[in-house]
Amino acid sequence: MIKISIIGSGNVAQHLITTFQNLKKSGSEIELAQVFSRKKETLAALLHPEQIITEYSNLQEADLYIIAVSDDAVETVSNQLPFKNRLVVHTSGSMALNVLHDNNRKGVFYPLQTFSKGKTVDFTTIPICLETENPTDYQVLDKIAKSISEKVYAINSQQRKALHVAAVFVNNFTNHLYSIGNEICQENQIPFDILKPLIQETVTKLNTLSPQEAQTGPAIRNDQKTIAAHEAFLTDEKQLTIYKILTQSIQDNGKKL
Amino acid sequence: MIKISIIGSGNVAQHLITTFQNLKKSGSEIELAQVFSRKKETLAALLHPEQIITEYSNLQEADLYIIAVSDDAVETVSNQLPFKNRLVVHTSGSMALNVLHDNNRKGVFYPLQTFSKGKTVDFTTIPICLETENPTDYQVLDKIAKSISEKVYAINSQQRKALHVAAVFVNNFTNHLYSIGNEICQENQIPFDILKPLIQETVTKLNTLSPQEAQTGPAIRNDQKTIAAHEAFLTDEKQLTIYKILTQSIQDNGKKL
Repeated sequence: MIKISIIGSGNVAQHLITTFQNLKKSGSEIELAQVFSRKKETLAALLHPEQIITEYSNLQEADLYIIAVSDDAVETVSNQLPFKNRLVVHTSGSMALNVLHDNNRKGVFYPLQTFSKGKTVDFTTIPICLETENPTDYQVLDKIAKSISEKVYAINSQQRKALHVAAVFVNNFTNHLYSIGNEICQENQIPFDILKPLIQETVTKLNTLSPQEAQTGPAIRNDQKTIAAHEAFLTDEKQLTIYKILTQSIQDNGKKL
Repeated sequence: MIKISIIGSGNVAQHLITTFQNLKKSGSEIELAQVFSRKKETLAALLHPEQIITEYSNLQEADLYIIAVSDDAVETVSNQLPFKNRLVVHTSGSMALNVLHDNNRKGVFYPLQTFSKGKTVDFTTIPICLETENPTDYQVLDKIAKSISEKVYAINSQQRKALHVAAVFVNNFTNHLYSIGNEICQENQIPFDILKPLIQETVTKLNTLSPQEAQTGPAIRNDQKTIAAHEAFLTDEKQLTIYKILTQSIQDNGKKL
């Protein structure tokens, strides 16, 4: 039996709790032992009351402690754990391994996905990025990660930093471009739904082409007439600035190829 | 029987040819009559040789002529058509209805999708945006469009212009952000595949949330510590500029909500 305890009650914590609970039901040797939450009520729907603890001193021995709290709280929480030499990991994409306290064996268990409350996610397709200080701990993490996901990667702190920045570009920033597309549609009484198949196809193409190969549009074609027409169309100063900078960047990239 | 002739042999033309040929096989009353191509060879694999013509003067009477050529060539081609008062449409997202010559009844048949050569597309899910000068012609276009797609919209020239700009944001520009994500991964020996589930989930979320509601990340949380760490990480001047501008834009948008 591999015993896991989770510290935290937010989005990531709740998704992990549900996933490990379901794993147990299917007869896995991995067991969710305890979850620390400042308020018992937050997790009342997910766990037996006795599994939820509100004091660190009540944390029993486990093979793995997963700190799934906001980035800023990771260090503080790890400092408060009242035991030594156990395997303690955080789930943050933006925090180094070393923010964890030296009292315990450090690791990272970073599921690279955007979690929304109330929207169930299928963990099997979520990449989990692992890092530990020593190989034996890596094997434990690897076993646990592979029990819930088909995509497990060894990613060190420097790589995770890069990955987190890359994720901002492909997730946060692309979503913002969808917002701008939506704004332009709304201003012109066009249903945003018209754009959704195009948005999906842009992603589907990545299965067969690199993004560099998949690039289309007036910028990469250097179609100055269309670019000028688009710039004349955009009256919102912010949208225009973004249009110009991304057009320029596509053209610079094209020249590198 | 509704007879269609296509002028052009590029990406959009070829996808339309294949789609209309398949439609005929399934017993539709819509028939692809002739296709004009400067070189017969280009379309040899798709059509009977006698269906391909290389002189405008060989164009027979049809209910609809679809000019599927590059944006810049639409006007010239429409000027060269040797007949009058027939229904002639173009397929361009960036051209107004009025670039077509007054000799004929004008219309637009704009499939909003990114077409790649060699990659088959399922037309049934591709939105087709229609515009005509008169209601009778609209009914003809509407019937034809609905025979190949479930998503047919009436979109006037001004709206189509807006849509084309919006499409650049959600397709060309997001794809460029994927390129940047890929670059950052490559520089740090990370497989780009790790990011693909996140990219897909960003799009899947749009089924249930507006992009404004779906926005996550350090910018919208105003997480200055993470933003500063990302800016320090980015050594590429162009990537840094894009990071700063999109972060600022997300924050400005957040304040509007």
